[in-house]
Amino acid sequence: MKEFDSPIFRDGNLLILAYDHGLEHGPSDFEENPESADPRNVFETAKHDAVTALAVHKGLAETYYEDYSEDVNLLVKVNGNSSLGERDDYYSPKQCSVRYAVKELGASAVGYTMYAGSDYEDRMWQEFREVQEEARKYGVPVVMWAYPRGNGIKISKYDGRNDTDVISYAARLGLELGADVVKCKYPGSKEGVEKVLDVTGEMKFVMSGGSKRSDEEFIEDVESVIDAGGNGLAVGRNVFQRSDSEALLDELEEVIYR
Amino acid sequence: MKEFDSPIFRDGNLLILAYDHGLEHGPSDFEENPESADPRNVFETAKHDAVTALAVHKGLAETYYEDYSEDVNLLVKVNGNSSLGERDDYYSPKQCSVRYAVKELGASAVGYTMYAGSDYEDRMWQEFREVQEEARKYGVPVVMWAYPRGNGIKISKYDGRNDTDVISYAARLGLELGADVVKCKYPGSKEGVEKVLDVTGEMKFVMSGGSKRSDEEFIEDVESVIDAGGNGLAVGRNVFQRSDSEALLDELEEVIYR
Amino acid sequence: MKEFDSPIFRDGNLLILAYDHGLEHGPSDFEENPESADPRNVFETAKHDAVTALAVHKGLAETYYEDYSEDVNLLVKVNGNSSLGERDDYYSPKQCSVRYAVKELGASAVGYTMYAGSDYEDRMWQEFREVQEEARKYGVPVVMWAYPRGNGIKISKYDGRNDTDVISYAARLGLELGADVVKCKYPGSKEGVEKVLDVTGEMKFVMSGGSKRSDEEFIEDVESVIDAGGNGLAVGRNVFQRSDSEALLDELEEVIYR
Amino acid sequence: MKEFDSPIFRDGNLLILAYDHGLEHGPSDFEENPESADPRNVFETAKHDAVTALAVHKGLAETYYEDYSEDVNLLVKVNGNSSLGERDDYYSPKQCSVRYAVKELGASAVGYTMYAGSDYEDRMWQEFREVQEEARKYGVPVVMWAYPRGNGIKISKYDGRNDTDVISYAARLGLELGADVVKCKYPGSKEGVEKVLDVTGEMKFVMSGGSKRSDEEFIEDVESVIDAGGNGLAVGRNVFQRSDSEALLDELEEVIYR
Amino acid sequence: MKEFDSPIFRDGNLLILAYDHGLEHGPSDFEENPESADPRNVFETAKHDAVTALAVHKGLAETYYEDYSEDVNLLVKVNGNSSLGERDDYYSPKQCSVRYAVKELGASAVGYTMYAGSDYEDRMWQEFREVQEEARKYGVPVVMWAYPRGNGIKISKYDGRNDTDVISYAARLGLELGADVVKCKYPGSKEGVEKVLDVTGEMKFVMSGGSKRSDEEFIEDVESVIDAGGNGLAVGRNVFQRSDSEALLDELEEVIYR
Repeated sequence: MKEFDSPIFRDGNLLILAYDHGLEHGPSDFEENPESADPRNVFETAKHDAVTALAVHKGLAETYYEDYSEDVNLLVKVNGNSSLGERDDYYSPKQCSVRYAVKELGASAVGYTMYAGSDYEDRMWQEFREVQEEARKYGVPVVMWAYPRGNGIKISKYDGRNDTDVISYAARLGLELGADVVKCKYPGSKEGVEKVLDVTGEMKFVMSGGSKRSDEEFIEDVESVIDAGGNGLAVGRNVFQRSDSEALLDELEEVIYR
Repeated sequence: MKEFDSPIFRDGNLLILAYDHGLEHGPSDFEENPESADPRNVFETAKHDAVTALAVHKGLAETYYEDYSEDVNLLVKVNGNSSLGERDDYYSPKQCSVRYAVKELGASAVGYTMYAGSDYEDRMWQEFREVQEEARKYGVPVVMWAYPRGNGIKISKYDGRNDTDVISYAARLGLELGADVVKCKYPGSKEGVEKVLDVTGEMKFVMSGGSKRSDEEFIEDVESVIDAGGNGLAVGRNVFQRSDSEALLDELEEVIYR
Repeated sequence: MKEFDSPIFRDGNLLILAYDHGLEHGPSDFEENPESADPRNVFETAKHDAVTALAVHKGLAETYYEDYSEDVNLLVKVNGNSSLGERDDYYSPKQCSVRYAVKELGASAVGYTMYAGSDYEDRMWQEFREVQEEARKYGVPVVMWAYPRGNGIKISKYDGRNDTDVISYAARLGLELGADVVKCKYPGSKEGVEKVLDVTGEMKFVMSGGSKRSDEEFIEDVESVIDAGGNGLAVGRNVFQRSDSEALLDELEEVIYR
Repeated sequence: MKEFDSPIFRDGNLLILAYDHGLEHGPSDFEENPESADPRNVFETAKHDAVTALAVHKGLAETYYEDYSEDVNLLVKVNGNSSLGERDDYYSPKQCSVRYAVKELGASAVGYTMYAGSDYEDRMWQEFREVQEEARKYGVPVVMWAYPRGNGIKISKYDGRNDTDVISYAARLGLELGADVVKCKYPGSKEGVEKVLDVTGEMKFVMSGGSKRSDEEFIEDVESVIDAGGNGLAVGRNVFQRSDSEALLDELEEVIYR
Repeated sequence: MKEFDSPIFRDGNLLILAYDHGLEHGPSDFEENPESADPRNVFETAKHDAVTALAVHKGLAETYYEDYSEDVNLLVKVNGNSSLGERDDYYSPKQCSVRYAVKELGASAVGYTMYAGSDYEDRMWQEFREVQEEARKYGVPVVMWAYPRGNGIKISKYDGRNDTDVISYAARLGLELGADVVKCKYPGSKEGVEKVLDVTGEMKFVMSGGSKRSDEEFIEDVESVIDAGGNGLAVGRNVFQRSDSEALLDELEEVIYR
């Protein structure tokens, strides 16, 4: 079933450069490094050998990917939302069909955000089902952004970054629902990652980069993911919010594909 | 109409090993026996001759079934939900199409949870209709997890395990709506099972294993199901929450297919 | 358009034996005559020449009709609901497609419950539209269970059995929306039936049997329907809740097809 | 685009005999002239040369139109609602597909009620879109019953019969959304009609007959519509609630096609 | 992907004459210049060489475009709403399919209003997705009316005309979701436009004309858009609410295509 050979994996691991911030957070995320507002600059960055996939939304793929298709593997994020609206609970609508992503845009993989714990969780499961089965049809892997959030997650559990139980459950859902890669908040320690990996079977696991922090801390976290048996990283702001990301990507390459 | 020959029946009876707990309850169900978190271990257990079908969700079937297709019959549970969300009433979204379950995953049967009595009962009937008719198209039997629950079930009736009237009604709905097998809570006694079987016509009846309890009690309940004319058991935690399940399955085999 | 020749009519009249109680009311309706819980017994009863159609839900048709197809005409009820749920207003979901009823189950007609006056009336009109147009495609008549109920029906009008105006309106809706037969509560008198028939044009009219009552009263009501120009009866409990229904059906045969 | 030649126009004008009252208002509208309850009588009336189209719902068309297809042009009203329900705001569900109306029933035109100003306005626009585009496919004109109503229409504006601004806006929506004929309340005077016609471009305009009133007043209103440049009338009760409608139709013929 | 050659661009810039006011605002917008109520007059105006596209709704395109197809490029606005209804938050239903717009009406482009920040934002994203992908199929560009509005936009941010941050985010969404042209409120200054253009990559940007104001002010705003690197203007009332628009269009032509 899952026998596709996808270029988003390198020796079984992966580094996703995520650039969905203009849609999810708005232009404010570009302020620290104004050059990052221009997609071309981020597509350029994605040429680095450490990066196995660039995750963007449909519009950026349509406009820019053609010029980079030789050097960059495309992961189209098929849902997402803006932070302009006030939702009663977390939900992320679909804005690209899998067919369009793969056949028209040239995607090597698709991504889907799942808010387990939200009042819209059930609806998202159903939408994920369609995405997942369509992805199988086209033979591309599915990356689940596994973000437990919303009314179902108790206050004390809300900060998914720290509560390993919630992260583990959300990650397991990725396996049960048919994701190939699950992207989770870093659970705080190597032990936390191990606990998550205990329940995710043969699915790939990458940590999400989160907001920008010091290089030392960041690299350390990635290392502990790899040490625990995880498969890499999805990173955005920690890379594109600096003008010189080359060095950091070099380091990540060494850590992830050592 | 219902003339399919399905490997999930052995001499007309069946034992379903249900392993949907990672999705329905989360990793906490694996704590008693940490090895149960790894799907391979449960797929191994399912090779026992007593087990006529292994019930799992799409993702586990995709990842692991290929290696076990010679020895295990696959029952794909096509709906389910997590316990991370807080629903206003019971509902279980669909996360696998019947076509995908049968044609791509190799399922010999499909399963669907029906929460009769919930505010979402009507919606689930409609979704069940589609599942049922599609299953007929592919010639596989449909197992209904018949769980009466929710706002429509009065407080006193809530514990379906004890209220035979509610179990009977829910089981009858299985027959009326076109299920081939109905999986119900054990109604507390052989007499209870007989009362249920009075209204279920020629549909198959299996009791659900429920939470783990002593082997004696458990085997006794299964025996009374068979004695009353029922057809077997769907069991999960009582099997996979112990490291040595061989002996128990041997005993069950004797009881169910005697 | 409506030129189908349907076996559910005998000399233009009809007697529908309705056996949807296990789904609509649950097993409690079988208590008075426990044998009625077994569908075979009711299928047997339906062989009586007085009965032009047996109305059941999908599951019973699937399981039992094959053995009776020579002697019984099948009317599949395509919607229905259980009394386990607590709805905010009357609604009856669809649980069988017309295609499935006709092509797979062998139905000679389909039935649909319409709750005019409910908050869900508009939704049911739309679902009825699909059922009706699909039935035309397959050339089978549509019987509307015309049951005005719900928030739109004023308290004083609620008991549709007595309020001829409400019954008349609901029956007329059957004609306007394209039903071939309308099944209504008995409006209390021959005059009441005549008033209803004044507005139903060339559509067939049958009274619904209602809860069990004395044979004399019951036969008298049916007679007044026929006298007024109506077309027969849909009966359930008055027949299957007695072990010997032969005599009653003989009498009904004389009244309806005289 | 709009080049169909439709028999519902006579010298560019039209008189629609509307007979949807059994569905919209119930049998009470037939009380003044009980013969009007029998659709045959109204189909007979529609043979008058003044009448260019008879507007009925699906069921009446199915049952009776075949016998009148030589003499009467059929306009199938594809949505409508009963007055049994209590809606939170105005809405009219679809109960006939355009395909069915044209291909199976022989409709020369279709009609759709639009409640601009209702909370369901947006939903009705979307349903109108489908109706309108399907009607184009079959080459039949679309008549919009343009009835501004509901929460969006301020109390003072509610009586659309008098508020020319509201009628004008609703009529313009007919033009903008692709109706071929718009049917509006009479705006009280010839000047009112002119004001409406100022904004309806090349779309046809007919006034709706409204409740029954004196022949003089009624004819006068129709005359002012024609004088202002309007195209005719849709009339129901003013015709069928009298036993002798011949004379009135003769007069209307002279006024409308003079 | 985006390699269509569209006549709505002239030297890379564009001037859209928008005439959706009869639908969006009603006939009151025609009062200042009553001739503007007749679509023919506005279609005539659109022949001016400065105008690269006329934006109208389906009905006007159907009725009038045939006579102007040689001289005018058609942009069909596929959603819109009336101001008769009272919505709980901003929403704009679809009333023309892209297929119909392009294949039947001859549209060279389609337009869609997106209310980012509304409670219906997510629903509109999904509808936009379908519109956008269908437009790609037919090879026509998509113009997004990017109007941030509704409960999600804080009071202080509500007047999108002044808050450059909100305009920037909404414009960026156009790029991310796959629009080819974004139409935004004028952000008050050339600097404001530049700020927006910093984040819109290679997507085209036009300012919306807004309500009528002095020619000097208006031209100045357009000039600053062009100076900042923007691509033109979508204008309605500032043109059609005057009887002599020739001179203004001459001026705009010089500014936009200099």
